Amino acid sequence: MVAVFFDGRRLLVREDMPLPARREGEALVRVRLAGICNTDLEVTRGYLGYVGILGHEFVGTVADADDPGLVGRRVVGEINVACGECSMCRMGHPRHCERIRTMGMRDWPGCFADYTVLPSGNLHCVPEHVGDLEAVFVEPLAAAVEVLEQVHIRQSDSVVVLGDGKLGLLVAEVLHASGHRAILVGRHAEKLAIAERRGIETALAGSRSLPRKADVVVECTGSPSGLADAAALVRPRGTIVLKSTFHAGAPVNLSPLVVNEVTCVGSRCGPFPPAIRLLEEQRIDTSGLIGAIFPAARAVEAFEEASRKGSLKVLLDFRGEAS
Amino acid sequence: MVAVFFDGRRLLVREDMPLPARREGEALVRVRLAGICNTDLEVTRGYLGYVGILGHEFVGTVADADDPGLVGRRVVGEINVACGECSMCRMGHPRHCERIRTMGMRDWPGCFADYTVLPSGNLHCVPEHVGDLEAVFVEPLAAAVEVLEQVHIRQSDSVVVLGDGKLGLLVAEVLHASGHRAILVGRHAEKLAIAERRGIETALAGSRSLPRKADVVVECTGSPSGLADAAALVRPRGTIVLKSTFHAGAPVNLSPLVVNEVTCVGSRCGPFPPAIRLLEEQRIDTSGLIGAIFPAARAVEAFEEASRKGSLKVLLDFRGEAS
Repeated sequence: MVAVFFDGRRLLVREDMPLPARREGEALVRVRLAGICNTDLEVTRGYLGYVGILGHEFVGTVADADDPGLVGRRVVGEINVACGECSMCRMGHPRHCERIRTMGMRDWPGCFADYTVLPSGNLHCVPEHVGDLEAVFVEPLAAAVEVLEQVHIRQSDSVVVLGDGKLGLLVAEVLHASGHRAILVGRHAEKLAIAERRGIETALAGSRSLPRKADVVVECTGSPSGLADAAALVRPRGTIVLKSTFHAGAPVNLSPLVVNEVTCVGSRCGPFPPAIRLLEEQRIDTSGLIGAIFPAARAVEAFEEASRKGSLKVLLDFRGEAS
Repeated sequence: MVAVFFDGRRLLVREDMPLPARREGEALVRVRLAGICNTDLEVTRGYLGYVGILGHEFVGTVADADDPGLVGRRVVGEINVACGECSMCRMGHPRHCERIRTMGMRDWPGCFADYTVLPSGNLHCVPEHVGDLEAVFVEPLAAAVEVLEQVHIRQSDSVVVLGDGKLGLLVAEVLHASGHRAILVGRHAEKLAIAERRGIETALAGSRSLPRKADVVVECTGSPSGLADAAALVRPRGTIVLKSTFHAGAPVNLSPLVVNEVTCVGSRCGPFPPAIRLLEEQRIDTSGLIGAIFPAARAVEAFEEASRKGSLKVLLDFRGEAS
């Protein structure tokens, strides 16, 4: 089958990859569409030291599973494979399993391939009237929902979403859909315009129209300087939600966070069911977030487009005939 | 009067300083003992760009005030002078006043002098049987209590206090006095021994006896690498309380905090009444924390001692005849 493979140095489209074998409890999924995430780009820069098939955002159709009722269903999949036995799993945090394996990142093959495998329990069926082009956003949308899972944001709070990239746009959409007073702050007028068309308030970074000090800042810049920028926008005793991960550290002066007694909350993957519900109820519109769709064979080109500064979501299409 | 003055470059003991004038609502305090804090050392290294009389930890006797009943009382003083009118003051956070002035740090003269002035409302009377050598610890002890004000630490939580300096020792004492399961982790066997004599569990940094992953880590290292060390000790979804402030930034890789969804809470000054109560009820013993007491005239020497790696609390004694 075709798969997008990272060998530790280069990105390759390999046509010779064997079909993955599913074990008991696992499902074999025929991938339909997959999305390139910033984390995939970071992995190709050395983040996590991963070698293998990339990718963790997908929508597909179950080709084989223990439960025959699952076969043929259109599904999305949670990307973390937990042991179910360690202390974090027993505390109810399987996404922080001590022996965690993560699709396309750590000890588990990714979904940029004709076929992929996940435990059946990781799969969620996609409602019929949610299309592939929407369903492929469930994983990053769940990461956006995670902000509301972790932090109690009051309806009276002023919220700044910092960074108008794909994740920032999704976070702003989720907060807006939840009735929160959120303003998206970014550096790209054309990106901010996408949010404005959805009725979301926006401001160019550095402009005078910025709120003076926000109760909550969600940092989605994808830049090592994001924390310092967020610290400048949050009020004392306020909260910063940190969403960016990088393959390297950066100099950060933490003193303002201590002096202002700011709370920083690291935030990663989120729950799929509320993300699916947001799409089902058409409370989120992902159509404006798609920058380009490439056939799988042109994945290298797709990664180049996804790496371009200011690019929108780049999708890989595996719906052609599987090899 | 005698005062310990920082002119932006050097530390001077000046004998020619005029007696400070108190305004309505303020009290003139004859300083008895004062403590040198790491923040004082950071100020002499350029932190906050402060020029003036240093110092913010003291116990003294009220020499003059609007209320004659206050005159002659032994007092300690909260170091932040708030406007009472800005949004942070109105939110009940005067220590985060937008126009804050801070004793010995920002727009307000410090207490390393024969006399100092504070708003009467900042003063707290010291119970008779709490001696000067204990009362001078109220300010840093309040900063230690602040950890419990900000974070809900459960009795079932495992807590690591990282850093066996003065603040780390006080935080470990406060947690121990509050019935928490805290282990003090540091690099100095002789400092850890102080905590052990108080019945507190300790471990040398890097040793095998460290708890595997703590629910809460209180970072009191005073070192820019403290956050990374704390991140290595905290469990996923756990909490780091950040206590260290520096005059410069340091490279920090924030990705582990994001991936493990750790909450970091900056923590600074705390409430005086519970700190005074801890001393009054003899639940805290500060006697082991005093490294040296210098007469005010030898303040430069005292700062050198306080700067020495591994030094304990250095006090300045102003109880001689005021000049």
